[in-house]
Amino acid sequence: MVSRADDDNGRGREINRREFLHGAMAGAAVFALRERPAGSVVVPVQGDAVTAQIAAQHDATVKMLQDWIAFPSIAAENRGYPQGAEYMAGLATAAGFQHVEIVPTKGKPGVFATLDSGAATSLALYFMYDVKQFDPAEWSSPPLEARLVDRPGLGKVIVGRGATNTKGPQVACLAALHAFKAAGRKLPVNLVLVAEGEEEIGSPNFSQLVLKPEVEAALRKCVGIIIPLGNQDPDGSVQVNLGAKGIVELELVSTGEMWGRGPKLDVHSSLEAQLDSPVWHLVQALNTLVGPDGHTPAVAGFFDRVRPLSEAHKAILEAAIPRRNEAATKKSLGVERWFKDESWHDSLVRLVSQPTINIEGLVAGYTGPGGKTILPHRAVAKIDMRLVPDMTALGTLDLLKAHLARHGFGDIEVNMTGGYDPTETSPDSRLVQAQLAAYRAAGLDPVLWPRLAGSWPGVTFTGAPLRMAAGQYGLRHGGGAHAPDEYFVIESANPKVAGMDGAVRSYVEFFRAIA
Amino acid sequence: MVSRADDDNGRGREINRREFLHGAMAGAAVFALRERPAGSVVVPVQGDAVTAQIAAQHDATVKMLQDWIAFPSIAAENRGYPQGAEYMAGLATAAGFQHVEIVPTKGKPGVFATLDSGAATSLALYFMYDVKQFDPAEWSSPPLEARLVDRPGLGKVIVGRGATNTKGPQVACLAALHAFKAAGRKLPVNLVLVAEGEEEIGSPNFSQLVLKPEVEAALRKCVGIIIPLGNQDPDGSVQVNLGAKGIVELELVSTGEMWGRGPKLDVHSSLEAQLDSPVWHLVQALNTLVGPDGHTPAVAGFFDRVRPLSEAHKAILEAAIPRRNEAATKKSLGVERWFKDESWHDSLVRLVSQPTINIEGLVAGYTGPGGKTILPHRAVAKIDMRLVPDMTALGTLDLLKAHLARHGFGDIEVNMTGGYDPTETSPDSRLVQAQLAAYRAAGLDPVLWPRLAGSWPGVTFTGAPLRMAAGQYGLRHGGGAHAPDEYFVIESANPKVAGMDGAVRSYVEFFRAIA
Repeated sequence: MVSRADDDNGRGREINRREFLHGAMAGAAVFALRERPAGSVVVPVQGDAVTAQIAAQHDATVKMLQDWIAFPSIAAENRGYPQGAEYMAGLATAAGFQHVEIVPTKGKPGVFATLDSGAATSLALYFMYDVKQFDPAEWSSPPLEARLVDRPGLGKVIVGRGATNTKGPQVACLAALHAFKAAGRKLPVNLVLVAEGEEEIGSPNFSQLVLKPEVEAALRKCVGIIIPLGNQDPDGSVQVNLGAKGIVELELVSTGEMWGRGPKLDVHSSLEAQLDSPVWHLVQALNTLVGPDGHTPAVAGFFDRVRPLSEAHKAILEAAIPRRNEAATKKSLGVERWFKDESWHDSLVRLVSQPTINIEGLVAGYTGPGGKTILPHRAVAKIDMRLVPDMTALGTLDLLKAHLARHGFGDIEVNMTGGYDPTETSPDSRLVQAQLAAYRAAGLDPVLWPRLAGSWPGVTFTGAPLRMAAGQYGLRHGGGAHAPDEYFVIESANPKVAGMDGAVRSYVEFFRAIA
Repeated sequence: MVSRADDDNGRGREINRREFLHGAMAGAAVFALRERPAGSVVVPVQGDAVTAQIAAQHDATVKMLQDWIAFPSIAAENRGYPQGAEYMAGLATAAGFQHVEIVPTKGKPGVFATLDSGAATSLALYFMYDVKQFDPAEWSSPPLEARLVDRPGLGKVIVGRGATNTKGPQVACLAALHAFKAAGRKLPVNLVLVAEGEEEIGSPNFSQLVLKPEVEAALRKCVGIIIPLGNQDPDGSVQVNLGAKGIVELELVSTGEMWGRGPKLDVHSSLEAQLDSPVWHLVQALNTLVGPDGHTPAVAGFFDRVRPLSEAHKAILEAAIPRRNEAATKKSLGVERWFKDESWHDSLVRLVSQPTINIEGLVAGYTGPGGKTILPHRAVAKIDMRLVPDMTALGTLDLLKAHLARHGFGDIEVNMTGGYDPTETSPDSRLVQAQLAAYRAAGLDPVLWPRLAGSWPGVTFTGAPLRMAAGQYGLRHGGGAHAPDEYFVIESANPKVAGMDGAVRSYVEFFRAIA
C-alpha cells in the first residue's frame, strides 16, 4: 500500500494546519488488554547497558524536561523567539546530533539536525518546540514550574505547559540518545530531525523547512518519520495507526452585510418582525448539510471519492475490534448509544471508514447568562469535515461551497481555517513493523488499526514529493494538552503504563527495532 | 379600550421580568419631523416662575444626578443595599413627598411614597433605584464619577452607570418637583411613587410592593402611571405608545445528558462518526420553529390568539406611518431590505401587528478564534418570542414546548428566563392625552403609535387587578444603557433635542397637562 494524498500536487502542504496532536489520539479510545503473564513495561531488561543507563540518568532526564518547560515558545504571542529555536538546537547538540542548523522561514525559525552514527538505516524525527498559550490563573500549580505532583491513580506526574504536548515525549526520545551515548553504545540508526516552532498556529511555514533541498535530501534517505507521540491508554494498551483521516476546518459566517438582508449591526430584537435574521439564515443553511438523521452528510458529491476499506484494512480492523472495550469506551465518553443504535462492531467500522461533518462550535449574538434582546447581525458555525481516502481537503471544500450556493446560501462565507488530506502508511513498511516490534519488546501487545479517525498532517511526509512512511510512536501517558494542568507521567502507579523511564526505553527499543 | 392581559389571573406578575427598558425604546426608530416654525425645546417659556427655576437650579440638578450615580445599587452583586433604598427614600423626601416608606420584600426593599398637594388628580410614578453591573476597564471615564464630557454631535453629556437607565430621567422628574417647590407653586397633581431595587434582575419581588394593600389603594386613585423614560430620537422626534408587545425569553438547551444520545461531555470531534451530536439536534429543532422563509413562526397554534389590529389602531397607524423616515431608519439599522422585500408601509404594519420568534444568541462548543476539534455535548439557543394581544407569555411557552415534543425534540430543555404579556392603554385615557399635550407644549409634534414592537412589563399595572393606564414619558436623549460609557445629554447640541433642563421642563408640562 502506498501513501496517498499524492493527488493534490503538493497543495496539501500549503494548506496544512496541524491539528492538535493530542486530540488526534482520542480515536484510540480504550482497549481491552489481553491476558498476559507477569511483567511490566517499567522493569528494565537485565544486563542491557543502555537500559541501565536510563535509570541512572533519570533525574537528569526529568530536569531536562523541567528546564525546557520553564522556557516556552508561543507563536501566537510571539514569545520565546528565536530563543526557542536556539534552545531546541542546543538540545539536539547535547543529544549527539553532529549537524545542527537553525533554518529561517517566513515565520518562526525551524531546526534541522542530523546524527550520523554510520548505521545502515536512517530514521527521521519530527519535533515541535512551541507550546500552546496558557493562563496561570487556571492552573493548580504554576505552568512553567513543571512541579512533580502526586496524581491519584496515575502516580508522580510533571504538571506544566508542554509536559505532554509535546516536550515530555520529545525529551524521552532525546534521553534515549543520551543513554546510548553514556553507555558507550553506537546508535543503531542515523537520525534526521526536523523541528518547527509554529505547530500550535497551524505549521504555516513548515514546508519551507521540509522542502529545503538539503533537508529534503536527508529525509529521502530515511525509512520513515515518527512524531514522538504515542500514548498509552490508562489500561496500558497501545495502538499503531496505519493512517489517519484528513480534515477541513472552516467557519460558516452568515452576516447581514454579505447577505444583503437583515441588519448590518446587532439591533433590537423587536425589529425581527420586519427584518430577516442572519442567524435563522445560518440555521437553515446548516440544516441542509446533513440528512434527516441529523448526522449523514448531505452535501452533493461528498461520498463520490470515498474509497471502501481494502480487504487488507478490513482484516486488520476485524482483528482489532474484539480487543476494544465497548463498556469502558462508553464510560470514558459519557455515551449510552452509538449513532443509529448500531452495534459496537458496526460503529467502529463507521468510525474508521466514514467521512463526517461536525459542528465544533456555534456562536451568535448574546451568549452570556440569561438573555439580551438583540437580533444579531452575524452568526458563525465552526465546522470540521473528516475525510477518508480518496477525498481531498480542497476538493471537499469546493463541494461544500457549491452545495451552499445551490441551496440559496451562496452569501454565507466559507472560511477554511485549516485542513489537510488523509494519510496512509503501509502495514508492511519498516516503520510500522518496527513500531510493532518495539512495543512487543516492551511487553505490550499493540493493536494495529487501519486508520485513526482523528487527523494529523502526515501528508506533509506521506504525500508528494516525499512519500515517506510516517507515524506516531512512543510509550507514555499524559493528558491536559491545551488545557490547564497539562501533565506527563514520570513514575507510573500502573505497572502497565510507562513512566518517564519506560518512555525513554520505548525509543531505545524502537531505534533497535528499525535498525 | 381597556387594558389587556387580564386573562392570566395575575400569573403575569409572577413571571414578570422587566425587559431592558432602554431596549424597549428601540422600536421607536427614526421619525421625520414635520416642518415647524422657529423654536426649540430648550428655550424656557417666558414669564413662568417654575420654568425659570429650572434654569436657576441647573447646577443642583446635575449634581443630584452625579451624586446618585456615585452610589450604585446592583442587585446581581448584592451591592448598595439597603442603602440604595434609603437613598431613594431621601431623594423622594427632598423632592417633597410627605409620606416616604421603605417597604421590605423577599428580595431588596422597595420604596413607596406619596405627595399630597391637595390636587384633584393623582398620578403614579414608577422608579428603579438599581443599575446594571459594569466593568470600569471598559469605560473611557470612571463609571461612578459621572463626568461631564463633550460628545461631538450630542453636546455636553454625563457619562456614568445609570445616567440614562434610569437615574437621569428620574432626576429630571424629581427636579421638576423641586422647581415647583422653589418657585412657590403648588404641584398640580398628587403623586404616588413606587420604586424598586431589582429592576435589573427582572423585578422578581416588585408585585409584593405593588399589591401591598395601602400601595394598591393609593395606585387605584391614580389616573395612570408613567415611567420617566421617554427618549428623543436624534432628530428630536418623540413617540407616544399605546401599548407594547409581550415577550417570552427562553433558552433551548440540547445536551447529550437529556437526549440520551451523543456524549455527556465534549469529546474529540473525530468521534462524531459514531456518535449523535447534540448540536445538530438543536439545529434541527430550531429549523422547525420557523417556516421555509426563515422567519414566520411555525409553532402550531402560534397565531391562534393573535387579535387583528382594531380599526382605531389601524387609523392611528396609518396616520403615523407617513411621518416615519424609511431612509433614515434603514441607515441607522444598517438595513437594505425589509423582510419579504415589503414596502416600508407593510413592514411597519407587520412590526406592530405580528408576533415573532427571534434567536438572540447561539452558543455551543468552541467559540474562540480558529477552530477546536470537539464534538460539543451541549448547545444553547437564546430565543425571544414577541407577543401581541391576546397571546400570553405562559400560553405561548406551552405551545413551544408542545411543538418541540411533537417534532421529536421533547428532550430539549426549555428554560424561560423572563417574560410577560402584551400591554395596552387606550388612546382616550387621560394619561395618553396628557403625554401628547405635554409634548406639544414643548413645541414638539408627537407621533401616536399603536403598539411598541419592544416590550415592557406594563402588564403589572395595566393587567389585573390594577388595570391602570401606563406609559413611558419624558424628553431627553441618552444612550449606552447596560453598555460602557452610558450617557445622558445635559446640554444638547441639537436645539430639537432636550438637555437636562428640557427634560425637567417636560415633567413640569406633563404634571400640568394631566391636571
